[in-house]
Amino acid sequence: MAKLLIRDLAGVVSPAGTHAPLRGPAGMSKLDAYEDAYVLCEDGRLSAVGRMSDLGALDGDVEELDGRGRSVVPGLVDCHTHACFAGDRADEFSRRAAGATYEELHAAGGGILSTVGATRAAGEEGLAVALARHRAWMLAAGTTTFEAKSGYGLDRDTELAQLRVIREAGGIPTWLGAHAVPPEFPDADAYLDFALEEVLPEAARLAEAADVFLERSAFDAAHARRYLVACRDAGLSLRLHADQFTEGGGIQLAIELGARSVDHLEATGPEGVQALARSDVAAVLLPVAAVFLGRPMPPGHDLLEAGAIVALATDFNPGSAFCERLPVAMTLACTQMGLGPVAALAACTVNAAHVLGRADRVGRIAPGYDADLVLLDTRDWRHLAYHFAGDIVAAVIKDGVVAWTR
Amino acid sequence: MAKLLIRDLAGVVSPAGTHAPLRGPAGMSKLDAYEDAYVLCEDGRLSAVGRMSDLGALDGDVEELDGRGRSVVPGLVDCHTHACFAGDRADEFSRRAAGATYEELHAAGGGILSTVGATRAAGEEGLAVALARHRAWMLAAGTTTFEAKSGYGLDRDTELAQLRVIREAGGIPTWLGAHAVPPEFPDADAYLDFALEEVLPEAARLAEAADVFLERSAFDAAHARRYLVACRDAGLSLRLHADQFTEGGGIQLAIELGARSVDHLEATGPEGVQALARSDVAAVLLPVAAVFLGRPMPPGHDLLEAGAIVALATDFNPGSAFCERLPVAMTLACTQMGLGPVAALAACTVNAAHVLGRADRVGRIAPGYDADLVLLDTRDWRHLAYHFAGDIVAAVIKDGVVAWTR
Repeated sequence: MAKLLIRDLAGVVSPAGTHAPLRGPAGMSKLDAYEDAYVLCEDGRLSAVGRMSDLGALDGDVEELDGRGRSVVPGLVDCHTHACFAGDRADEFSRRAAGATYEELHAAGGGILSTVGATRAAGEEGLAVALARHRAWMLAAGTTTFEAKSGYGLDRDTELAQLRVIREAGGIPTWLGAHAVPPEFPDADAYLDFALEEVLPEAARLAEAADVFLERSAFDAAHARRYLVACRDAGLSLRLHADQFTEGGGIQLAIELGARSVDHLEATGPEGVQALARSDVAAVLLPVAAVFLGRPMPPGHDLLEAGAIVALATDFNPGSAFCERLPVAMTLACTQMGLGPVAALAACTVNAAHVLGRADRVGRIAPGYDADLVLLDTRDWRHLAYHFAGDIVAAVIKDGVVAWTR
Repeated sequence: MAKLLIRDLAGVVSPAGTHAPLRGPAGMSKLDAYEDAYVLCEDGRLSAVGRMSDLGALDGDVEELDGRGRSVVPGLVDCHTHACFAGDRADEFSRRAAGATYEELHAAGGGILSTVGATRAAGEEGLAVALARHRAWMLAAGTTTFEAKSGYGLDRDTELAQLRVIREAGGIPTWLGAHAVPPEFPDADAYLDFALEEVLPEAARLAEAADVFLERSAFDAAHARRYLVACRDAGLSLRLHADQFTEGGGIQLAIELGARSVDHLEATGPEGVQALARSDVAAVLLPVAAVFLGRPMPPGHDLLEAGAIVALATDFNPGSAFCERLPVAMTLACTQMGLGPVAALAACTVNAAHVLGRADRVGRIAPGYDADLVLLDTRDWRHLAYHFAGDIVAAVIKDGVVAWTR
């Protein structure tokens, strides 16, 4: 049995509770916390956590890490990324900063379709190299579990290549077959005919969930319903990009179809908040995208207060959120949306794990969970949110092994 | 002669022009750029920059750095920090996120005075240790020249200790004698009597500039005038914190007294913008503080368009901007204030250097300037702003020596 002991830690904190997601201001503020503590990993799982004074003798070979002056939180879970892409959109970023409109950017070759061009051209090997680089960035920022979407291929070969590359990199693949209508098709219906007939059968074997971009400029609610029902029938869990720019009925559709989450919600009003709070559909908030596009923040505080399942993710992508760091999303959740650090931590650990169907395996520090941990260079774990973009991750442990260290 | 050659660089960029600050959309968008280029440092100064094809033979010992796939920008200049502090305010951050009001935070021992307590208790040696840590963080983010203010002592010994510690760490010290009224004094006038009689004479020997927090909760315009006139008479340059929460006449006072800058400006309206544009007082924008406090952004785009001297800084401090990274301020300037990456770079290089009276020495890549450079892990230097909180600094060169490397 491979054993790793992190000893003499100033603090160990984990969202409380068992396998269920946390909701409401009270639920999301519950923390299991230990001072002067240890964490023991055995064969990739957490086997014990507690105070140093309760640590008994250990048999066999034990690798030890010194935790003095440091604290530990669960490995972070990024439940919404588009990390599998080629190329960049620095030019579009610069034009937008200088005041270019969406139409001007589109005319200049910008937007999702510019990344589709670069991703198609990269080939499966090129995509694997790009994702490995992005994954290393995410890991260094504390992310030990990540979802990533296809949606930059929009043809059969590239969509399936994206899903394979994500899976091989250890990510959780989501088929975003309905991200945009590629130029080869006259309209959304014609594209969906192709995607559902030609891509879905194989995508359903590679992906865990399906996702759709429900927005005026992409797919409307009728298209989204058609796509999602077919994907559900093929065995996939459901996700939706909804209410990013306009309220388009995505929340109602998500609830009706039993989706795992609706993501974005920058434009969601009070009725949507209440509907989500009464449902089991998680609200995935992406504050980095709101900052990147200069958009209003989603109603995170209202969703928390109303009792919705609130999760937090980066939306890491080259167009609207070129940022792989969940702690940055935590800082923005605290400063822009009225989540405290404890709720922000729950939102990108247990609740994000719930969105990915892994709430029984990751997101908490408790016996039986995967041994995924972030060791912080601070006694007070709240610096993870408080130290905006700070370089405070000392080491990252994945499956009981030190996977990254400064 | 110690020589350092960075060769085969994908790109070298520097704000254009000579010693003067840049202003206006046209002025701030001018860049000297070279592709397939080199930079040569000799004895701590830049001696040549150009295309590889123009690089002649070099005499003597030359240390070489491989620039393939990389780009170089001038070392960044942070012209507004409070980096010399002890303790932290993670608790206040958490309470504010959960909705606590300013009054509640104050009653709970928060605010500037809580950092004053920790800073007084740290002693000069403790402060030096803290600043060394903060300086290392700043350097790793590309900052090669930094200003730091006192203002967390507010007694003679600690104010002077802060200024000594800043100077010894290689920072540019500003005496922020008028930051808050400490509890030992009945009112602002009584405190200023003390500060100007007991502290100013020695502070004027240690600091380069004086600064005041002109705000309803701190010092009003009459107090600020009294303080600044005395400091000017003692030979110090002048800076002002103004218009952070309310327009308080700081801009007019700054112009009248010939201050180097007014800093913050979140509350500045159109008249203030026009007044600054007609003056030689720089507008120092601190977007991280606006994010951290959930405040509106300063009118950066209007100031740029109107032709003001726009600079950008972190405001790094434990209460309202716990962030030492100028590239984060650049991303926010681009996404929230309509500065393009080129203007954002000028704002935290040449224009920040101007605020610190060093526009002839730092902030540009040109022969004769200090050899302060940031080597980026990207061919396209714009990733410095585009990659939000990205870890893309490969190495930092200060005075011709590699001072930090990943």
